[in-house]
Amino acid sequence: MPEEVQTPDIEARLAALEAKVQRLTDEIELYQLTASYGPAVDSGWAQVAADLWTEDGLYDVDVGSWEGREEIMGLINGELHQGLIERGCGHVISLPRLTIDGDTAVGTCYSRLYSRNDQGFDAWRVAANRWEFVRTERGWRIKNRVNRLLDGTSASRDLLRRSFDDANEPLDV
Amino acid sequence: MPEEVQTPDIEARLAALEAKVQRLTDEIELYQLTASYGPAVDSGWAQVAADLWTEDGLYDVDVGSWEGREEIMGLINGELHQGLIERGCGHVISLPRLTIDGDTAVGTCYSRLYSRNDQGFDAWRVAANRWEFVRTERGWRIKNRVNRLLDGTSASRDLLRRSFDDANEPLDV
Amino acid sequence: MPEEVQTPDIEARLAALEAKVQRLTDEIELYQLTASYGPAVDSGWAQVAADLWTEDGLYDVDVGSWEGREEIMGLINGELHQGLIERGCGHVISLPRLTIDGDTAVGTCYSRLYSRNDQGFDAWRVAANRWEFVRTERGWRIKNRVNRLLDGTSASRDLLRRSFDDANEPLDV
Repeated sequence: MPEEVQTPDIEARLAALEAKVQRLTDEIELYQLTASYGPAVDSGWAQVAADLWTEDGLYDVDVGSWEGREEIMGLINGELHQGLIERGCGHVISLPRLTIDGDTAVGTCYSRLYSRNDQGFDAWRVAANRWEFVRTERGWRIKNRVNRLLDGTSASRDLLRRSFDDANEPLDV
Repeated sequence: MPEEVQTPDIEARLAALEAKVQRLTDEIELYQLTASYGPAVDSGWAQVAADLWTEDGLYDVDVGSWEGREEIMGLINGELHQGLIERGCGHVISLPRLTIDGDTAVGTCYSRLYSRNDQGFDAWRVAANRWEFVRTERGWRIKNRVNRLLDGTSASRDLLRRSFDDANEPLDV
Repeated sequence: MPEEVQTPDIEARLAALEAKVQRLTDEIELYQLTASYGPAVDSGWAQVAADLWTEDGLYDVDVGSWEGREEIMGLINGELHQGLIERGCGHVISLPRLTIDGDTAVGTCYSRLYSRNDQGFDAWRVAANRWEFVRTERGWRIKNRVNRLLDGTSASRDLLRRSFDDANEPLDV
């Protein structure tokens, strides 16, 4: 009877597939999470943007840091960001290089902030980004996003380098 | 006999995997569809570009709209686009945020049109994009692409906002 | 007995899933490989960057070509690249359009080299890219990367066009 021979094999093959599909699903969900950032902030929808973070999530930029959803909403509703929107802006995130470790993950990629000028757009900020993600009951969320301008100082280089070296250990920036 | 116990479970696990793999396949196919746009239009291959749309597909830009493959081919073969190619240009599409609903899907992301100048490239247009996709016998195709310059007016902000709010309902722009 | 009826079906469904999951895994691994390029070169980690290529891999740019990991490391450790890093730069790769054929694959996409200026960043180079990948015992690697500035000459247009036309045949550029 072929079933008796195949069942253990089928069990193992199913389990292997389930693990692989979970991994692929995590990758895609994290791609989608980072692809949601721009549309949320450039439409000015502060609540949706802040909900990409955990309740106590951190957004750590070289020019300041914002802790928790209330502060992140304050950043988006603030004068600087609203001025950018009124002039015309795009926050574009590149595909993150990911290291996933169970219920946490780290993504490393680039952000670009385009700001409208008279003829077109300036690439006002191009920055190295490290996203520390955590799996929550409501799906993946950002626990900490670190954003460092690519200005030749070591902060951005170290952040990018960390992607290949103990990526999931805390970053000291 | 373990088979008798496991078979129904195996059936359910297979069905769950098949649904998840179909979903992941849709995500990747839509990533690939949008990643095909730039190479098609920047090589000037109008037929390949127009074939990314359905036969009656729409390309709705703030500066004009083109309906059906013939008109889209006309846009690519036209003076403005050919002039851009001759000077040197890149149409780069960011990864879309996707909402998939059976045989239709909506993607929201950014396009950038880089145009060559004396020293490098200008970011001439940075725009918010909404892609309405439909599954056809030949795979996913674009039913409508809406492109709105990020110029501070509400059209681009509303388009981005819609990604999170009844994304798959028709957009009134 | 349902098992006897279902087992052959289960075998076929498992095999179909395994093939689809392998294909999705290849897509994601190639996305990740190209997403690793920027962080490797902008952190200046020449060894990590060179390891994205095969031992004898080629990096063929309009301004020069580098063959093998030693030469690619030399490029990254060289004056031009180190000067870019010191001033502040970002090498950003767009999502590749992929054609996968067993243990080889071709990706077609855009690279942008942003270089810091007094107010923000210049898009110094925007280029068409063709990546010829090969599956090795250590995962996918780059066998040849061809990079052609989008300067209006035919080299970049032909490279992009090839993505849709015998993509996996060798490119004569």
